[in-house]
Amino acid sequence: MRIAVLGVGLIGGSVALAARHRLGAEVVGWDPSGQAIATGLQRGALDRAGSSVAEAVAGADAVFCAAPVARLAPLIADALQAAGEQCVVTDVGSTKRAVTAAFADPRFVGGHPLAGAETAGVAHARADLFDAAIWYLTPRESTSGVLYERLHRLLRGIGAQPAAIDADTHDRVLAAVSHLPHVLANVLVAQAAATLHEGGERLPATGPSFRDATRVAGAPSGIWTDIYLANRDALLRELDGALNRLRDVREALVQGDADAITAWNDAAAEDRRTLLESHLAGEEVFQLRASVPNQPGVVARIALELGRAGVNISDMALSPAPDMSEGVIALWIAGSEAAGRAAALIEALGFAVAGP
Amino acid sequence: MRIAVLGVGLIGGSVALAARHRLGAEVVGWDPSGQAIATGLQRGALDRAGSSVAEAVAGADAVFCAAPVARLAPLIADALQAAGEQCVVTDVGSTKRAVTAAFADPRFVGGHPLAGAETAGVAHARADLFDAAIWYLTPRESTSGVLYERLHRLLRGIGAQPAAIDADTHDRVLAAVSHLPHVLANVLVAQAAATLHEGGERLPATGPSFRDATRVAGAPSGIWTDIYLANRDALLRELDGALNRLRDVREALVQGDADAITAWNDAAAEDRRTLLESHLAGEEVFQLRASVPNQPGVVARIALELGRAGVNISDMALSPAPDMSEGVIALWIAGSEAAGRAAALIEALGFAVAGP
Repeated sequence: MRIAVLGVGLIGGSVALAARHRLGAEVVGWDPSGQAIATGLQRGALDRAGSSVAEAVAGADAVFCAAPVARLAPLIADALQAAGEQCVVTDVGSTKRAVTAAFADPRFVGGHPLAGAETAGVAHARADLFDAAIWYLTPRESTSGVLYERLHRLLRGIGAQPAAIDADTHDRVLAAVSHLPHVLANVLVAQAAATLHEGGERLPATGPSFRDATRVAGAPSGIWTDIYLANRDALLRELDGALNRLRDVREALVQGDADAITAWNDAAAEDRRTLLESHLAGEEVFQLRASVPNQPGVVARIALELGRAGVNISDMALSPAPDMSEGVIALWIAGSEAAGRAAALIEALGFAVAGP
Repeated sequence: MRIAVLGVGLIGGSVALAARHRLGAEVVGWDPSGQAIATGLQRGALDRAGSSVAEAVAGADAVFCAAPVARLAPLIADALQAAGEQCVVTDVGSTKRAVTAAFADPRFVGGHPLAGAETAGVAHARADLFDAAIWYLTPRESTSGVLYERLHRLLRGIGAQPAAIDADTHDRVLAAVSHLPHVLANVLVAQAAATLHEGGERLPATGPSFRDATRVAGAPSGIWTDIYLANRDALLRELDGALNRLRDVREALVQGDADAITAWNDAAAEDRRTLLESHLAGEEVFQLRASVPNQPGVVARIALELGRAGVNISDMALSPAPDMSEGVIALWIAGSEAAGRAAALIEALGFAVAGP
């Protein structure tokens, strides 16, 4: 397998390391920065570098576009231009509506790994960066089922948990669970710094809760300004919701209303429990086999339907019939309840299912 | 050494475990809950239980009052009533102005360990809970130097880093680095839960940044409603500052002002770096020896002056002269720069200093 990584930073470099070390893939890199390429080669993330996007993509089975959000669209267009018919092209951008709407090509699948941290650059890349991390995929009806399955298996192979989601939902969810938390972390450190500096006092040590709450404060502007702006309508909606909630708790504090504060705090405890327990690990895995026509959009439709219902596809495999007119898609689902729901959902789409 | 722990929960239980295991102290507990006492005995946190505050405190060298903030004042009053002349009484409440103002007794020192987590109850107590944790102390001029030193050494012995701070500054700082982060964490989980529930969608898994940012959401209301209300003027000041900052970033998003967003994000990165680097570890420790009159308030004044200047006292020892009219206080300070500043500050208070 040959993989092209366009943009050799923390994410692209970690994809490259994992693909080489875990899948034995040949990895060709391209980056506008010669320093990034040199470090990628030196760290063993790349087998070699292409002098252009077209040269890096030539002969690849899969292409990862890992540039900042604002530069993704032209990079994906160049990659699709250079890629062969059987090559899947994906990106790793943190917002998904724009690129998913822009590229109806059957070879393109939008993607977004929930990984990466305070660091940036290939110097911090790690082969285990994606272990157990959700990797959102935003297929469209136009997406090739064969290529979607290849990408899904490739992501499993580098340790990630692929999960299909439609692009609108992705961007709304990410505004709530990532972009708004980044905004609030920035506000927390700015407010604390102002309060502690005032009066010329030295800064006292901060406790662990402050460190945790502000871990993402001041994430690299080269990436995050683009993310905030690319998703600003969804982010503004979440920000306005947060402002309303803050005004409510402010009012309860002004009134000294202990009952209201307790009710608000208890509701937050319940919300957090529900949010974090929504995906349980370590369940038994069941196999489902569905007969599907070999048409564009079928795999994407099934993946999106299960993703929408919160069913996580642990693994998948496509077995086309000899005449390619139809095939069997095998899905592995964790948990008997989830597997049962998945079977019902696929049957409701009109496909016969065997198991669990 | 005999220690009384009044309130056998996470904090009180952890003090008890650490004092028994690390200092060989005899620990007597008191708690209104028979279950807490039973668990404390069973976990080896207590040698025995007192049937009343007075019985638990009788003969103690140090008393820790570890009740929720709203119940602290009467508990401290009862403890001081029962304690001997040479017994130091402290508390572990998260706000410090009220109790520090209420008790001018030379035996009382307000305290607040920056430790504890999502858990509550003696079942979660650990002997290492305070390792390397800042433990704020709020001595007054009326505080006995001998008893302050004993408490300081006791806290060092159970692993903590005692740091003197005046009560007003403590409450303002805690509003910024703890109470406001708790409020924002609650708002984050409530907002995310509302967004994800809407449309009847199942909850997707959340990324690590969301987990970190909301670790303290919905902390136990039995403790936190009191904290929010006891410190509400300081918290409202921080909350209003945060609201103003959120409105500013909202405006930059509405305008699509990339330069303003980048500048705001870069400033947050710098603020976080400054906040978290303000205490460096692993420096060489220097000893200072200052001759001081044996008068009430001298040790408190020195501790507060160094605390205000950001100088951390790693350890301290008092050696009274035979006639008790004056004595030498030895201080251990990490870092030559800090030790030099400490010497200058103590000399400026009018006391002779030897070393570093």
